[in-house]
Amino acid sequence: MPRRPLVLDSDPGLDDAAALHYLLARPEWELLAYTAVGGNVPVDLTFRNARALAAAFGIDHDVPVYRGAGRPISRVPIGGDFHGASGLGSAELPDSAVPEQQSLAPLELLRLSHVYENELTVVATGPLTNIAAALILDPEFARRVAHLVFMGGAALVPGNITSVAEFNIWADPDAADLVVASGIPYTMVGLDVTHHAPLTADDVAKIDAAGTDHARLTAALLRDYLNAYLTFTGRDHGFLHDPLAIGVASDESFAEVRTGCVVVGTDLGLHRGQTVFIPDDAAQTPFLTEATRARTAVKGNVAVAPGRSLFPADFVSRLRQPLQ
Amino acid sequence: MPRRPLVLDSDPGLDDAAALHYLLARPEWELLAYTAVGGNVPVDLTFRNARALAAAFGIDHDVPVYRGAGRPISRVPIGGDFHGASGLGSAELPDSAVPEQQSLAPLELLRLSHVYENELTVVATGPLTNIAAALILDPEFARRVAHLVFMGGAALVPGNITSVAEFNIWADPDAADLVVASGIPYTMVGLDVTHHAPLTADDVAKIDAAGTDHARLTAALLRDYLNAYLTFTGRDHGFLHDPLAIGVASDESFAEVRTGCVVVGTDLGLHRGQTVFIPDDAAQTPFLTEATRARTAVKGNVAVAPGRSLFPADFVSRLRQPLQ
Amino acid sequence: MPRRPLVLDSDPGLDDAAALHYLLARPEWELLAYTAVGGNVPVDLTFRNARALAAAFGIDHDVPVYRGAGRPISRVPIGGDFHGASGLGSAELPDSAVPEQQSLAPLELLRLSHVYENELTVVATGPLTNIAAALILDPEFARRVAHLVFMGGAALVPGNITSVAEFNIWADPDAADLVVASGIPYTMVGLDVTHHAPLTADDVAKIDAAGTDHARLTAALLRDYLNAYLTFTGRDHGFLHDPLAIGVASDESFAEVRTGCVVVGTDLGLHRGQTVFIPDDAAQTPFLTEATRARTAVKGNVAVAPGRSLFPADFVSRLRQPLQ
Amino acid sequence: MPRRPLVLDSDPGLDDAAALHYLLARPEWELLAYTAVGGNVPVDLTFRNARALAAAFGIDHDVPVYRGAGRPISRVPIGGDFHGASGLGSAELPDSAVPEQQSLAPLELLRLSHVYENELTVVATGPLTNIAAALILDPEFARRVAHLVFMGGAALVPGNITSVAEFNIWADPDAADLVVASGIPYTMVGLDVTHHAPLTADDVAKIDAAGTDHARLTAALLRDYLNAYLTFTGRDHGFLHDPLAIGVASDESFAEVRTGCVVVGTDLGLHRGQTVFIPDDAAQTPFLTEATRARTAVKGNVAVAPGRSLFPADFVSRLRQPLQ
Repeated sequence: MPRRPLVLDSDPGLDDAAALHYLLARPEWELLAYTAVGGNVPVDLTFRNARALAAAFGIDHDVPVYRGAGRPISRVPIGGDFHGASGLGSAELPDSAVPEQQSLAPLELLRLSHVYENELTVVATGPLTNIAAALILDPEFARRVAHLVFMGGAALVPGNITSVAEFNIWADPDAADLVVASGIPYTMVGLDVTHHAPLTADDVAKIDAAGTDHARLTAALLRDYLNAYLTFTGRDHGFLHDPLAIGVASDESFAEVRTGCVVVGTDLGLHRGQTVFIPDDAAQTPFLTEATRARTAVKGNVAVAPGRSLFPADFVSRLRQPLQ
Repeated sequence: MPRRPLVLDSDPGLDDAAALHYLLARPEWELLAYTAVGGNVPVDLTFRNARALAAAFGIDHDVPVYRGAGRPISRVPIGGDFHGASGLGSAELPDSAVPEQQSLAPLELLRLSHVYENELTVVATGPLTNIAAALILDPEFARRVAHLVFMGGAALVPGNITSVAEFNIWADPDAADLVVASGIPYTMVGLDVTHHAPLTADDVAKIDAAGTDHARLTAALLRDYLNAYLTFTGRDHGFLHDPLAIGVASDESFAEVRTGCVVVGTDLGLHRGQTVFIPDDAAQTPFLTEATRARTAVKGNVAVAPGRSLFPADFVSRLRQPLQ
Repeated sequence: MPRRPLVLDSDPGLDDAAALHYLLARPEWELLAYTAVGGNVPVDLTFRNARALAAAFGIDHDVPVYRGAGRPISRVPIGGDFHGASGLGSAELPDSAVPEQQSLAPLELLRLSHVYENELTVVATGPLTNIAAALILDPEFARRVAHLVFMGGAALVPGNITSVAEFNIWADPDAADLVVASGIPYTMVGLDVTHHAPLTADDVAKIDAAGTDHARLTAALLRDYLNAYLTFTGRDHGFLHDPLAIGVASDESFAEVRTGCVVVGTDLGLHRGQTVFIPDDAAQTPFLTEATRARTAVKGNVAVAPGRSLFPADFVSRLRQPLQ
Repeated sequence: MPRRPLVLDSDPGLDDAAALHYLLARPEWELLAYTAVGGNVPVDLTFRNARALAAAFGIDHDVPVYRGAGRPISRVPIGGDFHGASGLGSAELPDSAVPEQQSLAPLELLRLSHVYENELTVVATGPLTNIAAALILDPEFARRVAHLVFMGGAALVPGNITSVAEFNIWADPDAADLVVASGIPYTMVGLDVTHHAPLTADDVAKIDAAGTDHARLTAALLRDYLNAYLTFTGRDHGFLHDPLAIGVASDESFAEVRTGCVVVGTDLGLHRGQTVFIPDDAAQTPFLTEATRARTAVKGNVAVAPGRSLFPADFVSRLRQPLQ
């Protein structure tokens, strides 16, 4: 089976690291580039973390790592420290020995979208700043990309950073709204499904017990991740937010998707980052304004419930296998 | 057991009629006044319907019916016809023979809040226009009312008139926001619970079979109600939205409530009528604006899930009993 | 000449007092009621001030004074103290000996609009809360009133309380927007003209020198008013905001008016209270949203520049005459 | 005198062409790059027009022309045709023979800001999309640029495309708000001053009479410009919007500037593109929200009135001189 070209745009981030591992553990993808975006921590740190993770997983000589946009498009919000000051919890990973790439993530996304026109999958597990920046520079990016899968949003359920907003979208709502209005073919993987993909201490122990260096590294990061959940939310388990985006990109049976329009709240107040979902069958209601009705013509796929395959078991199983 | 004083503020409306019947079937309430508000249909029609229902249930000589505010506080939205052109489906109920009251609902609410200071329960099953108008005229109304229970909103679930808004709140969001910010002790009974209180054709048949005039009348109205659900939503059942507000006012075990702050979206666009719920334990998050944080000091009760008692069975059972 | 019926709705307020004096000094008006609204200070104080001013000007036995709505329709803003803690600067005016009226301003406005249908002029020199409350209770009020003249807003010039908002509108923008969208025939007298109606210490001295009790009282209040301007703005003169509303109601040559639509910013943020003016000749622009375009059908008169008669001279001259 | 490095970012556009001519006619500037941005017409056309103008003024072999961002950051608005379908009225200018540059305007702005750190002046006469895109990619651009002068906005006066908004800002308000909040040292040259810089048919005739090829070209474009004013606004004169930005960048005496904060309305509705100006002396008012108060720390210069030198005379005089 020929492998399909993919760019992973990420803000590592503890579960972003697990998402990278899971991606490398799946046979169908050729990872063309690993691009960093500010989000969980600023881009200087996510870029450094991405390089260190690429080195730790032994791909840094094959997969270029690019720095992303220096700031969100939206006004910079107050940050958090869920992922620790460095963004990778207590892990101290050495930087890659490969020289830093000078180009920027949005430019590489544009370049690769020409090289792999109509073939490229982009998976974004952080704020959508880099994707939006690419679209601002060249709106035709939306026509050249085969599929964008992003972790973010909350269609029919409450948010996690505010009552209505999920973190990735809230961190750059203007970028998110620009992306979902651009015509790019997308699947939104948000809290509607990721909150049905729990990660437990048992799962982490199973991964650790696989005994490979990679499994041990990811297990260590995921232990920090579970500790953060305990500390910040009191929960005895976490959720596989970012890995599930790779999961759904690889296998649609991990989620039930509905078609419709997403409009993101971009004001500074209460609705910042809300992903209002207008399913196709509601788009004809007379209760929409002209502006919203126009938007309903631009549709995407939204994961609204778990699918017929359970993701967490697949995740644990694949992370226990040695990487090829 | 002494009966407790209550005003029912309503926009009948098919399920409002059933709510009135259910209210009269409960022994703990003394209905002081039945006030009409515009909503399902304009106030001229809801006033007429309220008078006709009072007559049909034989209370028009004892319980005064008052006309409410002539328009919502918010800009008048596009209307619907779920409840038929008259608001009472195909029913043709004669008007009451009692002369029309000249006073208006907000004034009577104010007057009764003085007479029954700290004792009065108000149940609102339509838009909150009359309650808000009373508060504008006299903000101390909020301190004199013992309990306001209103049907409306959607705290943790999607809306029914738009992706985010429930009809009653959407029809006058400025009124709703004013009310929940006023300090009045309230319980919001919204879609989080009413969508767990189904009404089926079997239920209606059981009510009809009770054979009393009142049961037959309510059953006829509820058949129209179920037909409207079938026509407008394709569902083979309806929901006991308005009756459940009476239910929760009477017996808290019909809902699980959480304490927190509700902020209503009042703009004209996508968020009109959304009831954003900020639970107490989320009010300290740094991700709120100053304005929202100030609002979190004003708390209410919000029904977020069904309680330990099932409402539909109680509803059917009580409607089968002859009224005292 | 038969006198024309008028209600003065006011939040006295130092220049509101001068507006009352100027009104009484004009022969064409029959003052039916003097109604108090919260604004410069809360309604309890403006009601008290209105009663005291009615007594001071000797009209309290002839003109009933009514308390207005207890709060603005919009969320209560942060207050100011331009008009002193009492609202009448350093003046210590005794209350009227007439018993307090029990009815409320919006109800009396409704009642008088029936008695004087198509004849009644209403001049509002504070926030538009009472007018809006009357319209909420009965939207037909808009058809029965002959003319509403209000002091407030800024059509083509910056604001005074914020960069874009004038105080009266900012203090209750929801009320203002409801009023200008209601279809009531109105003339807006805002900063576009009132900032061309200066009041100087010389003017006040001239009024004082007239020597009547009333002139001395008004002169004393206006001295406090000029002092407030000096303290709060550094200006050596004030502006005849509220008196000019009476002026324009009496004589259109005091302002140049244009016809068009006014839309008030009602959000809590930067645009709160802005009166966006869309002149008739701009209403066809393609750059309006559907909602705004619909609003342009509801037109009013907006004073955009001084007229051919100078108001300040007329004001000083009339206040120097003994009241009839 | 050594010449100072400058980039002109423009959406030619008829008066943008005159701005280029005026810039070339001033001795103090070294034009490093001429960058195109979408605005008056889409970027494909403004890029073509910029290349053609560079050729027509004989600079295309010395000054590179770069294509800008492919779309505004804000949702794409309805366009206009003030500048004709091509953007250069009836002119038919041949394209430059120089091959197209492959790099994009935001990247060149970033590159030149490193080469000429703390020396570079940027003058923007179209929407601020390219400047904003540079800032998104690298926020430190704001610290490296010496001065940004942009034509756009309306601080204390009404707008021209809507009641409150000037065209350039309205065409990409999110870009504008990002720029004025970025910390970049800027001077806003908006309608407050450009509406005091009229251009008459006499002025155009004087330029034409100078007889040089360049003067004749600019005169021809400006005749189309005056015709557009006559057709679209009924005015017998136009305004030197874009040239004045070059004027103020060159000589501050062409405008009276005040220091303060600008906040741009970014919603889709009535306030889209409004440039709310909060002068320094108003930034302490208690009537600002937390979010706005935070913004007042970021200050710029805003031209609020004509300065002591008259611009139109200087403009005509310089365009009559042969270019060096």
